[in-house]
Amino acid sequence: MSIITIERKILEKNDSVAGENRALLQSHGIFSFNLVSSPGSGKTSILERTLEHLGGSIRLAVIEGDVQTDIDAQRLAKYNIPAVQIVTRGGCHLDAPLVRDALAQFEPAGLQLLIIENVGNLVCPANYDLGESAKVVVVSTTEGDDKPLKYPQMFRQASVLIINKIDLLPYVNCNMDALKKNALSINPQLTVFETSCTTMAGIPVWCEWIRSNISKRN
Amino acid sequence: MSIITIERKILEKNDSVAGENRALLQSHGIFSFNLVSSPGSGKTSILERTLEHLGGSIRLAVIEGDVQTDIDAQRLAKYNIPAVQIVTRGGCHLDAPLVRDALAQFEPAGLQLLIIENVGNLVCPANYDLGESAKVVVVSTTEGDDKPLKYPQMFRQASVLIINKIDLLPYVNCNMDALKKNALSINPQLTVFETSCTTMAGIPVWCEWIRSNISKRN
Repeated sequence: MSIITIERKILEKNDSVAGENRALLQSHGIFSFNLVSSPGSGKTSILERTLEHLGGSIRLAVIEGDVQTDIDAQRLAKYNIPAVQIVTRGGCHLDAPLVRDALAQFEPAGLQLLIIENVGNLVCPANYDLGESAKVVVVSTTEGDDKPLKYPQMFRQASVLIINKIDLLPYVNCNMDALKKNALSINPQLTVFETSCTTMAGIPVWCEWIRSNISKRN
Repeated sequence: MSIITIERKILEKNDSVAGENRALLQSHGIFSFNLVSSPGSGKTSILERTLEHLGGSIRLAVIEGDVQTDIDAQRLAKYNIPAVQIVTRGGCHLDAPLVRDALAQFEPAGLQLLIIENVGNLVCPANYDLGESAKVVVVSTTEGDDKPLKYPQMFRQASVLIINKIDLLPYVNCNMDALKKNALSINPQLTVFETSCTTMAGIPVWCEWIRSNISKRN
């Protein structure tokens, strides 16, 4: 019983700090999304292609989450954008206090977009509000079409689903119609994009979604 | 501080029950392994190919872990083997008490092999001993070659690494030498197999490893 109490307290504390993060971001008109997926679904690649497509047209910052390394932040170094790496040292998700501490390292005035890349984990990050405007869940075609049914909480919490690695469809056992149907059966409100970071397919449409959400804030 | 105390107590309780599971399995001469990976790396497919290759030559049972569904157990139904599905209802890993309860549903006498398929999660299951003889971590080529560095605890805890989906190597950005080097830098003791569940490549060698470990028990 005491375990449940403490877990609830952790989530209450998290949600309270997430509210502060959200208020800070909103006060500066910053749109933000939290990229979540299994390890290796392509979160960092999508981020790279997104930065390339947006070019310098949007003032943005990135928070990178990782269990152990700063490999992803190193990959982003060449884009010359403000980026903070959070290393959880074994922790299986980002939480709102970690994001608050990372936010303190940016100058928010003038920013239009904050991208948070979570730890690769399709289970635990679903339960932690970071104060973001939207959760964006990425699933790759190589993972098969049943993942929304097997890990439903993440798909329930997300506003957007990116189906990545569509260039590999000819080689893998994944039915796109079934994948979309499974995801929408869990969350009919999902906006779905189909992308390939190899061919750039779908990246412009996804970036248009980002731009339109930034415009709504201004 | 109380949180740390309770987490330690949970792990101590888990390890105590894991010891009981291990003693039970050893008393019957049963070899067991715990399949762990990200969602979609191919654990269930490897299990299917393994069952097909072993045929009826080994008396085995399977425990399936899943967050929400019994999709994987359904996939195994056609093999006519004893199988128990554990649904964690949001829980991000199997633990030893769940496995103990599942074991109670088998008749252990005469079994040679127990296969446990964990929840798809490359972080949390690393910390939970289930009483298995060995952890077998699966990583697919589509996930890239940096995963051992980014999720080191799982690779430290494993005895075996299966690199799956090698048939997709021509189409993905994954350097096999780098992947193996990264894994062995974390854990030099790892036995490494390379498999494809589409072409059956590597499955016979992996099954030979299973057979040799069963032989050691008898």
